Amino acid sequence: MIGIDWGTSSFRAYRLAADGRILDRVAREAGILAIPAGGFPAALEAAIGPWLAAGERRVLLCGMVGSRQGWVEAPYLPCPAGPAEIAAALTRIPYDQAELLLVPGLSTRDAGGVPDVMRGEETKLIGLLAALGSAPALACLPGTHSKWARLEGGRIAGFATQMTGELRAVLLAHSILGRMAEEGPTVEAAFRRGVRRAGEAGGLLHQLFGTRGLGLMGELLPAETSSYLSGLLIGHELRAVLAEAPPAGPIHLAGAEALAAAYALAFAECGLDWRMQDPDLAAHGLHLIAETLA
Amino acid sequence: MIGIDWGTSSFRAYRLAADGRILDRVAREAGILAIPAGGFPAALEAAIGPWLAAGERRVLLCGMVGSRQGWVEAPYLPCPAGPAEIAAALTRIPYDQAELLLVPGLSTRDAGGVPDVMRGEETKLIGLLAALGSAPALACLPGTHSKWARLEGGRIAGFATQMTGELRAVLLAHSILGRMAEEGPTVEAAFRRGVRRAGEAGGLLHQLFGTRGLGLMGELLPAETSSYLSGLLIGHELRAVLAEAPPAGPIHLAGAEALAAAYALAFAECGLDWRMQDPDLAAHGLHLIAETLA
Repeated sequence: MIGIDWGTSSFRAYRLAADGRILDRVAREAGILAIPAGGFPAALEAAIGPWLAAGERRVLLCGMVGSRQGWVEAPYLPCPAGPAEIAAALTRIPYDQAELLLVPGLSTRDAGGVPDVMRGEETKLIGLLAALGSAPALACLPGTHSKWARLEGGRIAGFATQMTGELRAVLLAHSILGRMAEEGPTVEAAFRRGVRRAGEAGGLLHQLFGTRGLGLMGELLPAETSSYLSGLLIGHELRAVLAEAPPAGPIHLAGAEALAAAYALAFAECGLDWRMQDPDLAAHGLHLIAETLA
Repeated sequence: MIGIDWGTSSFRAYRLAADGRILDRVAREAGILAIPAGGFPAALEAAIGPWLAAGERRVLLCGMVGSRQGWVEAPYLPCPAGPAEIAAALTRIPYDQAELLLVPGLSTRDAGGVPDVMRGEETKLIGLLAALGSAPALACLPGTHSKWARLEGGRIAGFATQMTGELRAVLLAHSILGRMAEEGPTVEAAFRRGVRRAGEAGGLLHQLFGTRGLGLMGELLPAETSSYLSGLLIGHELRAVLAEAPPAGPIHLAGAEALAAAYALAFAECGLDWRMQDPDLAAHGLHLIAETLA
């Protein structure tokens, strides 16, 4: 079978053996935002045409390709959901060369009844379930919108999104904090200082301005500012999540390398235990969903 | 005497009687960002030339005109500070037509030792002290960067800045939340709902994304989004401030009309008592500082 994680800005396809081993892979920049109207079939064929020609007949797709801006919109499936619920809710895309099946995104509601959604991350979480089994676990998938999920009984019980990554980006690009920041490599000490700062009184809105105060007084260098801000925001994210759902075991962490490393550093600074997970979780998840289906 | 509050984007001058009554006033858009290099003397004369010609000889200025981007930089004075400390720390600007005296900004440090600054608001707070005397009080001056100050013994004991207004602006202009928002008048019910939401669990970074979740599910209309977001952010600001320093009496509120009204609505939603203060606080503060000096 073929598994595809097709997001807003990237395309990753895996050719998978019956036992789930990755036989081949293709990664492209062709995220859904780069696809012209009606261009999805051609983009798919350009990427995995040779595998289809070699006889592959089943393709599972997850990610923003199933959003309103994607190929076909797949409705959200409410939590709790595991491989069986997801396999029963696949959306078929009309296509003549293979069976194209779209994985639904998931929805949930928090304690206040406010809805939350994910699209693409559910497949990575299913991949994590394949490794962890049915024991309760807490997973962290950092990104523009970080996802924290509770896994229970072999299903995704619920999750919460944190707008950390996007907030960091808009503050650096468009606020007074960006004007005092100088681009450069991560400064680990400044990042850790930001994480610790999140544990102090005053609240995030005050502490954001404190970044400016430190800069004005020469107590935070321009080259340290973006690292400190990352630490501050991730520190607030962490404290909010842990206040809600303190982990019984290690936090299972999976994400792009640099970002996952930053979260690992924040976990270490807060004395939390974590496990870095396989970057190919989406492939494992797509395989497990297809197996459930077969 | 003449008192001038010269900020980033506005210029307000007052001609004051010996007893502090406002005899005349001038308001212009000519904030310091609109003044070309070396253009401060000409801008001043254009605005208050007739008062100088009529014999006024003392001019007190406060606000960003005393910043690095202003006419002359006036160093920050550390809290606690009252009229006497401020009057003793005025910076004289060389000028041949009158005695020009610049009010210093104030600095403080929070419980975590992080520095905070204000420039212009200290004068409004002195104006408030003129009305309140030496009893302890909590003041809120909303703005791009809201200032919350503790007044004690006739001085400004300390303060905390909240980046609420700027965060709201960058989120609406540059984030996914802005893309779902439709411009329009404040929707009071949505604002109040945002204020209440800030009291629920989950943290600000999660609740920001929740705004998106509500929109996606049709539970928050595009025309309600910016009001809800304002309520959410002001609600977080309020809760953070009150966790630090619960007010013994009413909160003294002074700011631009629409913004002060929004804060008043948030106070009401949280069951807090408040007093709306005179919009000419800066004039009263400048007069009190000049009196101390004379």
